[in-house]
This record gives sequence, C-alpha cells and structure tokens, in this order.
Amino acid sequence: MEAVGPSRGQPKAVVLLSGGIDSSTCLAAARREGFVPLALTFDYGQRHRHELRAARRVAAALEASEHLVLRIPLEQIGGSALTDELPVPKDNSLGGIGGQIPITYVPARNTIFLSFALAWGEVQGTGDLFIGVNALDYSGYPDCRPEYIEAFERLANLATKEAVEGRTPIRVHTPLIGLTKAGIIRLGRELGVDFRLTHSCYDPDESGRACGRCESCLLRKKGFQEAGVTDPTEYSSR
Amino acid sequence: MEAVGPSRGQPKAVVLLSGGIDSSTCLAAARREGFVPLALTFDYGQRHRHELRAARRVAAALEASEHLVLRIPLEQIGGSALTDELPVPKDNSLGGIGGQIPITYVPARNTIFLSFALAWGEVQGTGDLFIGVNALDYSGYPDCRPEYIEAFERLANLATKEAVEGRTPIRVHTPLIGLTKAGIIRLGRELGVDFRLTHSCYDPDESGRACGRCESCLLRKKGFQEAGVTDPTEYSSR
Repeated sequence: MEAVGPSRGQPKAVVLLSGGIDSSTCLAAARREGFVPLALTFDYGQRHRHELRAARRVAAALEASEHLVLRIPLEQIGGSALTDELPVPKDNSLGGIGGQIPITYVPARNTIFLSFALAWGEVQGTGDLFIGVNALDYSGYPDCRPEYIEAFERLANLATKEAVEGRTPIRVHTPLIGLTKAGIIRLGRELGVDFRLTHSCYDPDESGRACGRCESCLLRKKGFQEAGVTDPTEYSSR
Repeated sequence: MEAVGPSRGQPKAVVLLSGGIDSSTCLAAARREGFVPLALTFDYGQRHRHELRAARRVAAALEASEHLVLRIPLEQIGGSALTDELPVPKDNSLGGIGGQIPITYVPARNTIFLSFALAWGEVQGTGDLFIGVNALDYSGYPDCRPEYIEAFERLANLATKEAVEGRTPIRVHTPLIGLTKAGIIRLGRELGVDFRLTHSCYDPDESGRACGRCESCLLRKKGFQEAGVTDPTEYSSR
C-alpha cells in the first residue's frame, strides 16, 4: 500500500485502476465528482509488468490518496489468453469486438475485482466504487454490461456489514458507461489525464513499448483517431 | 492443484472447502447429489496453517477429484480478527452469535470466495457451486443469508460467457441452509464425514490442537452435544 497524496476531508471512493485509458479516465472522473480516490490494482499473473507500472504512474499523477496492489493468482484458474500461454491475437481487424466474446476474456474477472473493491471499501468506510466499464467493453464482455453492474450493486448491498446495517450503502459508479473509446479519450483529456502514462498493449516489447498490432492497441489507435486527439503512444510497429 | 481421485463421468461441481464441519459436510452432500466435487480452498492469511491441512485431509478422504488452494491476500485489506492482529474473543458464551455481526467477520468474504468459484467453474465447465452456509451463520454474517445467495446466483448468471451464452447456467447450492450445527453434524455422520479430520478452532496450539474456548470451538462442542453425537475432537483445555 502506497500513500501518494493526502486526504482532504472529502468522501473516499475505491477506484479499480489497471493503468489503461479507461480506468485512468475513470479515476480522474471520480476526483471531479468530489471523491478522494483510493486506487485498487490487481497483479493477476499478466504476462508483463508494464501494466502495473502504468497503474503506479497514473495513481501518483492523479493523486490517489492510497494505492493498493493485490496479487491474486488468476493464472492458477486459467482460461484466458491474458493469463495462460495462448498466443495474443494480432492484426485481426477487431474481429473479436462487437460480436463474440473475445478470447482475452478472463473468467469472472470483474466479479472478482469488484468483490475486493467492496471488501477494501468496507474497511476504508466507503461504499462508493468506481469501475471504467463502457459501451465498447460491454459489447464483448458480459461482466461490463449495465445489467451486470446493477446486479452487482444489489448483491453488494446484501453482502457487507456496513451496507446491511445501513451505514454505508454501496454504489457502483460507471462514469464511462455510455462512452465510446473516442468519448473516453476526449473526457480524459478534459480531466487532465496524461495518456503517455497509460498502457493498453497486450503484448509489449521488453522495454514496455506497445506492439501496435494487438486488439487493445488497435482500439487505442482507433480511439485517438476518432477523438481527433493526437496519439502520444510510441508503438514498436506501424 | 492436486489430483486426489479420478473423475467418473458425472457432472462436476465446485465446492468451497475450509476444512471445518460445515464445508466438509457440504462436500459430502455434493457427492451424494451425484456431483464429482472440485474442492476450492483459500489461503487468506489465516494465523495458522491447521485449517489448510484439514482442508487437504478432507478433500482426500471425501475423494474430491481436484483440490485447488488459492492464496489471496485478504490480510492486506484488513478489517477482521481472523486476518488482523486483533485478539480472538474467548469464553464469551457465544455472545457474538445470533445478535450482532461477530468481529471474526471478514469483509465481503463469501463474495470473494464465490467469485473465484464462479471463475474456476467456468474454466472447468460447470456452473454448479456449493457453499456450506447455514442457519447459524446467517444470523451473524450478512453474506450467508438466503437472499444474499439468491442475489449472487442472479449476478453470476449475468457475469460469465458460459452462463450468458446459455451453455452453463449457474446454480449456487446450499445443502445446509436450513440446518443448525447439530443438524449438520447428524447429516455429516450419515454421509460418512470423519469429523476427526475437520478443524474449527480460531486459535489452536502449535500442534494444531483446538483451544476449546473460542467461539468456533464453543459452537462445535454445543453442536455435538445437541446432535447427541460423541465429539471426537481433542481440545487443549476443558
């Protein structure tokens, strides 16, 4: 746990932070709504550490009052290209998005992540949880859709001592839920997110430079183009 | 992951197993219902390892086809006597049970545990999840009550690829939900659970022997008495 800035007497909120564009913008949105953000990042056996470094940079830059990085062994469960030894798909023209569920799907990931956010929030005295799910995600991942988020909020209000005893009702905030990638990039720019600090690539080189060819890089490039914002990312190809 | 028995062509189910009386009886109940049990145990920074050893003994004795032990860092989140450095309450005549939520409560524990069960079940091709919550628990812990379990099941059916695509609907089985501790002990005996293998104590001595005085030991003793079953446990006091 790293204290990276002082609390200012405002309400706290737990913000799930991967270090990508969406969660970084979500953290900035939580701050704009008046919350002191407590950033929560998971180290879940990703194939590289660049994502965690990006999360640390973003938490510091956006003045999260704490940053908790939890190691959870999703790789022992398996079932995903992000944690297994399956190859990351390249140059597939975003075929996995908008249609089927992509193979980069991690089973029950947001349920696991939100459960830990709920637990940490209870200990920290807050029921306000932020997650950067959005319109693009929920075309592909079931646990990013609005009905899923509502069901989690309902569950959470039955799950914890503080919620059940009425002191700390749980609210799952999804400030990006109606936005496309381009919309998120425009919002992030407005809120002062430095996108050079963020990381999207599923398959970076050893120095952490984005490949420019995986699904996540393709979406990132397309988002900047559509937003009319210059992409500050240095890609290793194209 | 330890393979401790062959699969027999029957449907699989993920069973949450702590190594105590309830979860061990729950595992036996899953077998009686015709499932091949996949046991899932969490190492979450408990103060002793005897609970994990009990889980291994029970998984082997009751022929779980796999036993996955996941290390999750709940101690980094804090907020409980079971993971923090707070003293375990002793000799309190079960004051914490049936009234307030006990201080041994772990924030969002069952939500976290069921989320991992859901994830492992998806990878293993099953939506059948077993948890040993019961009438005694849900007087004290919000995340053991029937309405909580129903809300989790509803969430889970919106959360995973296999459930949303209709291949693997999620069912959360709670075979002990209507039973008292005495009722669970009678059921366990009927199903062949060897209670000598199970562990309940929150504060055992170095050899793993139960203290006989913590809330969990008091409930265990009372359960055997009320069930009219001889308690095979060797306690270090009384």
